[in-house]
Amino acid sequence: MGKADYYAKLEKAWSRVAGLSDAISMLSWDSHTLMPSGAGEARAEQLAVLSVLRQEEMSSSFVSDLIHLVDEKELNLWQRANLREIKRLHDHASSLSPAIVEAHSRARNHCEAVWRTARDESRFDLIIEPLSNLLVITREISLSKAEILKKEPYDTLLDEYEPGGSAAHIDTIFQKIEPALTDLLPEVIEYQKNFEFDFSKEPIGIERQKNLGLKVMKQQGFKFTNGRLDISIHPFSGGVPDDVRITTRYDELDWSRSLMGVIHETGHALYEQGLPVEWRGQPVGSARGMVLHESQSLALEMQICRSKEFFSYLASLIATEFEVEGAEWSPKSLYRKAIRVSPNFIRVDADELSYSLHIILRYRLERAMLAGDLVVSELPLAWNDGFEKSFGIRPTNNREGCLQDIHWYDGAFGYFPTYSLGAMTAAQLFATLSQDLPQISTDILEGKFGRIIGWLRDNVHRWGSYHSTETLLTEVTGEPLRPEFFISHLKRRYLTTDLT
Amino acid sequence: MGKADYYAKLEKAWSRVAGLSDAISMLSWDSHTLMPSGAGEARAEQLAVLSVLRQEEMSSSFVSDLIHLVDEKELNLWQRANLREIKRLHDHASSLSPAIVEAHSRARNHCEAVWRTARDESRFDLIIEPLSNLLVITREISLSKAEILKKEPYDTLLDEYEPGGSAAHIDTIFQKIEPALTDLLPEVIEYQKNFEFDFSKEPIGIERQKNLGLKVMKQQGFKFTNGRLDISIHPFSGGVPDDVRITTRYDELDWSRSLMGVIHETGHALYEQGLPVEWRGQPVGSARGMVLHESQSLALEMQICRSKEFFSYLASLIATEFEVEGAEWSPKSLYRKAIRVSPNFIRVDADELSYSLHIILRYRLERAMLAGDLVVSELPLAWNDGFEKSFGIRPTNNREGCLQDIHWYDGAFGYFPTYSLGAMTAAQLFATLSQDLPQISTDILEGKFGRIIGWLRDNVHRWGSYHSTETLLTEVTGEPLRPEFFISHLKRRYLTTDLT
Repeated sequence: MGKADYYAKLEKAWSRVAGLSDAISMLSWDSHTLMPSGAGEARAEQLAVLSVLRQEEMSSSFVSDLIHLVDEKELNLWQRANLREIKRLHDHASSLSPAIVEAHSRARNHCEAVWRTARDESRFDLIIEPLSNLLVITREISLSKAEILKKEPYDTLLDEYEPGGSAAHIDTIFQKIEPALTDLLPEVIEYQKNFEFDFSKEPIGIERQKNLGLKVMKQQGFKFTNGRLDISIHPFSGGVPDDVRITTRYDELDWSRSLMGVIHETGHALYEQGLPVEWRGQPVGSARGMVLHESQSLALEMQICRSKEFFSYLASLIATEFEVEGAEWSPKSLYRKAIRVSPNFIRVDADELSYSLHIILRYRLERAMLAGDLVVSELPLAWNDGFEKSFGIRPTNNREGCLQDIHWYDGAFGYFPTYSLGAMTAAQLFATLSQDLPQISTDILEGKFGRIIGWLRDNVHRWGSYHSTETLLTEVTGEPLRPEFFISHLKRRYLTTDLT
Repeated sequence: MGKADYYAKLEKAWSRVAGLSDAISMLSWDSHTLMPSGAGEARAEQLAVLSVLRQEEMSSSFVSDLIHLVDEKELNLWQRANLREIKRLHDHASSLSPAIVEAHSRARNHCEAVWRTARDESRFDLIIEPLSNLLVITREISLSKAEILKKEPYDTLLDEYEPGGSAAHIDTIFQKIEPALTDLLPEVIEYQKNFEFDFSKEPIGIERQKNLGLKVMKQQGFKFTNGRLDISIHPFSGGVPDDVRITTRYDELDWSRSLMGVIHETGHALYEQGLPVEWRGQPVGSARGMVLHESQSLALEMQICRSKEFFSYLASLIATEFEVEGAEWSPKSLYRKAIRVSPNFIRVDADELSYSLHIILRYRLERAMLAGDLVVSELPLAWNDGFEKSFGIRPTNNREGCLQDIHWYDGAFGYFPTYSLGAMTAAQLFATLSQDLPQISTDILEGKFGRIIGWLRDNVHRWGSYHSTETLLTEVTGEPLRPEFFISHLKRRYLTTDLT
């Protein structure tokens, strides 16, 4: 058998991992959209079986042997990048025993189920034990992985969502933006205080809202032959690159929530739909990580579609789709509403400026918990103190405090910082995009997204996981992540826009 | 390790098979309901990976060793039945090489894809080669299985859909019913010829039809916490026992098609939802086979809901749901329409009486093809001759002839006869049910299905695969399958019902 055959065999072995991952992804989408209430246990069982099988396939000695037998020198550059990614995933998988994988899965399922009740009843006492257990197992996992991956324990968790990410890098970045944001927030509130933010309370039917969303998705290049729009409690983007399933939720009294959800998820979807077809099923053909993913949703939602130009285009679409008229529906009124800054206890309802402060709080707290510096029972106090320090207001219950997000309770430690890094990456990419496409304002004004999405596709989507996030960003923008782009963007949008 | 431990290990090993089977089932449902057109290849890849893994799990030497180590004497009766079913499935799986499983999967996918075009364009020439290849592989599979399972080759294919079924038995049964049906058909057409079958052409909106269907499902005991109703081109019942997904299709000009589809699939769904919860994920807890499955859909659709009493109940529901009135909507008019006998080229549109003749034709042809007595290129001629002999009319093209059904082109040889055996089983079960529940007419008239479904649950559903089909039928009705019940039922309904 030639050495090239070893590589071919490795790709083939990995297509089994891909089949399992894709099946997991489709079933998870179904769990959050259509699944009837009594099917949860059966679905958990299906997902557990597929996850265990995937873990076995990824860490198998067959894969391990092939990795050692492949001769890198015989591979082309994309194949080498693919081999690097296979190794990375194989190392993650083989650093864990089946016993701890199963214990982790059980602890997550249990903690998440308890969290639903704890949040609904705002009872933190219920969650202390399940979350503490989950933390113990997560810590153990991070220590096992630290040895194999030669990384800091926290970085091994981060690596699952953002390959190559590190707490040291995040700390540097957050130390820069936190004071900037804390200074900016009161300034912007002061700047906006005399503007009229009232908007129409006229209810807009769900069918109309859905049609508007579909129109915008189509205009932005979402391929409906390879995806769908459905409904879920929280908007998300799921499925697989050839079948991207995005969701939103509708509120008759706030059409902008559903639309902004649709646009955000369309940004994620375009990334998936733009991944290199020739590398389907192989790690190098997958999205790079959550930072770039979030940068694509936020480039579309925040950079491109929270612009004056977009709301000018949108106002005419809305007039047709909603059959409404009047000053409240003017481009300016719509835009004013869209960029209102107003601190809020809830992350998912936060404005663009407050958002990163929400994230920084969560990042610090999860690191403290993982390091053993913060015990679970003291989380509510630490949360409320931290929140008050950033925003000057204090949550009155844990439902609007540390119980609001599913992430920790579902075992996703190391995920939160990617939201904020994504926002900064979006600002930096958009700065280059704007230079490359001088006609961008006119394009957006006319609802023409072809050139803009084409730019994202050429510079980001089609690269899959070929580069690291940092290399890709440097290749495209000339430098690694610099939060200054984000801060400048915020100052421009929130301190210089004429809102009268 | 005690011997009981071996059995416990075997159950645990089989739960992996169940997880894979269930995932396959959910993804297949999605393929036929929601999947966007461009996702077919990706989905086929997912299903192929899961199928190969399931095959590996079922035939593994680990399972094989455990089967040999288990001491049956230490097991209770349900555990023994479960062991018997595990052995059966293990034998099926281990009689095939991975190479032939893969070749079969490819040949099926290819043939099915070509069939879609061939049917749409009524071009049989396109399908000759793919179907011939698929037949060669199917024959090879049946020969390999015949050796291990010690069965006739055709019976090994049948065994996948109807465990324990045999062509010898089917031949005996079909030799009895064919002449009876052929005699009955012209007699009934003569009997019905002076009745007025016109019905309302008033279009009924899809929402109204859907609401009617949901009402009837609810009344018949469908658990909506464990299932859904959706739309597909052909109605089917899919999903898993805790999450049964049924579908129908809507035609504004024929509400009865959607409703009868819903009722038929509800019969299947109630069987799944009534399977023994304590045996979830184990073979003995699964539905027995396609004959009993079809008997449950047909007991509900044909025995219970094509009765005068049901249409009396339905007429009042319809008056409310559709907001219609007039003689065309009277119980009698509705019932007349429902039991009209009128030969038709298309199986899925056939009346209850013609249906089994459609099946007998297909059964004879598939046996001839598998035995090598009929080459694929001569199928159209053989089909048309056979059809004309039974019905006195001849298809004018292959789209309404041998290209109409997906089964063969998707590799499902041995499936067709279960439809007709199911119809006969339903008639026999219903005869006993009617004796056990003397108040059944009043119940149906009042739309009360609790006692009827309760009887089916106690006598059929809760037994899963504990008995063979024949044993269950004998336990419940006192004798094995006798087609006389079906013939009597047809004579009673179609020759003695006053339709004026």
